[in-house]
Amino acid sequence: MPYYLGIDLGGTNIAAAVLDEEYRIMAEAARKTACPRPAEAIMDDMAAAAQEAAQKAGIRLQDVEYVGVGCPGSVNPDSGDIQYANNLDFHNVPMGKHLGDRLGRPIRVENDANAAAYGEYLAGAAAQADIRNFVAITLGTGVGGGVILGGRIYSGSNHAGGELGHMVIQAGGRPCTCGRKGCWEAYASATGLIQSTREAMRADPDSALWQTAEGGLSGVNGRTAFDGMRAGDGTAARVVREYVEALAAGLTNIINIFQPDLVSLAGGISKEGDALLLPLREIVDREDYARFGTQRTRIAIAELGNDAGVIGAALLGVSKA
Amino acid sequence: MPYYLGIDLGGTNIAAAVLDEEYRIMAEAARKTACPRPAEAIMDDMAAAAQEAAQKAGIRLQDVEYVGVGCPGSVNPDSGDIQYANNLDFHNVPMGKHLGDRLGRPIRVENDANAAAYGEYLAGAAAQADIRNFVAITLGTGVGGGVILGGRIYSGSNHAGGELGHMVIQAGGRPCTCGRKGCWEAYASATGLIQSTREAMRADPDSALWQTAEGGLSGVNGRTAFDGMRAGDGTAARVVREYVEALAAGLTNIINIFQPDLVSLAGGISKEGDALLLPLREIVDREDYARFGTQRTRIAIAELGNDAGVIGAALLGVSKA
Repeated sequence: MPYYLGIDLGGTNIAAAVLDEEYRIMAEAARKTACPRPAEAIMDDMAAAAQEAAQKAGIRLQDVEYVGVGCPGSVNPDSGDIQYANNLDFHNVPMGKHLGDRLGRPIRVENDANAAAYGEYLAGAAAQADIRNFVAITLGTGVGGGVILGGRIYSGSNHAGGELGHMVIQAGGRPCTCGRKGCWEAYASATGLIQSTREAMRADPDSALWQTAEGGLSGVNGRTAFDGMRAGDGTAARVVREYVEALAAGLTNIINIFQPDLVSLAGGISKEGDALLLPLREIVDREDYARFGTQRTRIAIAELGNDAGVIGAALLGVSKA
Repeated sequence: MPYYLGIDLGGTNIAAAVLDEEYRIMAEAARKTACPRPAEAIMDDMAAAAQEAAQKAGIRLQDVEYVGVGCPGSVNPDSGDIQYANNLDFHNVPMGKHLGDRLGRPIRVENDANAAAYGEYLAGAAAQADIRNFVAITLGTGVGGGVILGGRIYSGSNHAGGELGHMVIQAGGRPCTCGRKGCWEAYASATGLIQSTREAMRADPDSALWQTAEGGLSGVNGRTAFDGMRAGDGTAARVVREYVEALAAGLTNIINIFQPDLVSLAGGISKEGDALLLPLREIVDREDYARFGTQRTRIAIAELGNDAGVIGAALLGVSKA
């Protein structure tokens, strides 16, 4: 009976998990990332979390074929090196070698967004056998993307591809953290939605959004505009409509480029469910270049939540049957 | 010694060619497409052109392993059927079967833009052995795209992917023929450049563009703005600058998504060479998300011109060594 062991390294937490043969989490363990600190110390805690998860699951490290790792930043899966990770201050960290020495198992390393997409692909929203081309979008602080083509993670010639959030949809528009103007991320992320909500509140002192957002502008979050819309506020409804239009613009671009079987949406805003999905699908249905064809891309909410990363890491050595 | 036989079906012409083992054209033959007429009549002429090209090259049809075909529209390479081709009025045409019966060879069918990209990949701008991920852009009446990933044509789950021109870069902007507003194609195609040139001329009756474009507005073509810029006209220089900015916006999007080894530019406007490439590279260099990495996407002018389609069709059964 095969087991799988994965580690998800984040800016705040290190999560490790053991999965059973049906890709369900049997046991978990966690450590604080506690950066800034030396990469070696962080990797020692990653190894400790993995060992603890294995112990809790009642398995030995020898019972897994490999240990999978998801890590932020620019990751070279061939060498196992983390070339660069901004939030961890990692530069050319030989993670594969370091963890391999400590755990005595082969290590597979992947970018964390790619690993999370692979988790949804094998064990979440895209787990059906007939899905081979799949794009996972996460609407969080930024807009993250993971691209699975022909059943394999696609990350380009330099492992830096799939930066779907840094696609300009409004040339000359909002400044993006990446240096461009008008990136999809600047509008479709939670950060972008919060900015739009605040701009609308400033422009409309009578909006009920001032009551919805406890504490005024500083109380605005990714739910405020949706809550205000449900409470019947017209300004909030406009903010949501414009948000969905921007989300649909980028999503339709991605569909026209990849024509995948499925696109999934994850992250806090995806919890709005049908309030987000229904108007989104309406726009995409109208604009998709393949709208006259027989087979079209489906759009769904992701299923694994925050576990996608550690599940995907654990399954990096697995292919869909 | 292997030979290759390809047919490129266009809205105006049918071109057939035999290639030698170094992918060079040995002999060609052509027919008029002469639509509208029945698909069977067009396919009979395709077979006749292929036979004539083989005869001119001094080979028999049995000397080729297969015959490759590039066709506009929605093509299913697995079944060999043309599902839909607007300009030919084709609906579910079993091209693979029909041509196979006439030529007595296995037939490989592909979308014409994909075939042209594959030609550049194997025998043109991307022929180097270390290029495995490659995007071909054609700046013509529209903006066409062909995507080669891991050495294979990528066209999505429904064979309709790679519609790179129908990526919105200016939400709510210029109406596009596809029904969306602000598509890359509406700005970066020759049609888009001609529209921008005319708009600038109308707004500036003193522009030297009125002399550059023989016959005034009706004499404007894809070269007019570039010629006006070279003649020192400020309005023309602005039109070119804005054109390059729009081209760069979409191109940087594509690089951030695919991070390919190479992107090539084909079509009439690509003949501007460095007048186009140098300012384009400057913007992409500044905005590419992987700009801090060691390996970056190169941008080059395509090499095969109008032969890309028939060469790519002939090579559909070949992989890069």
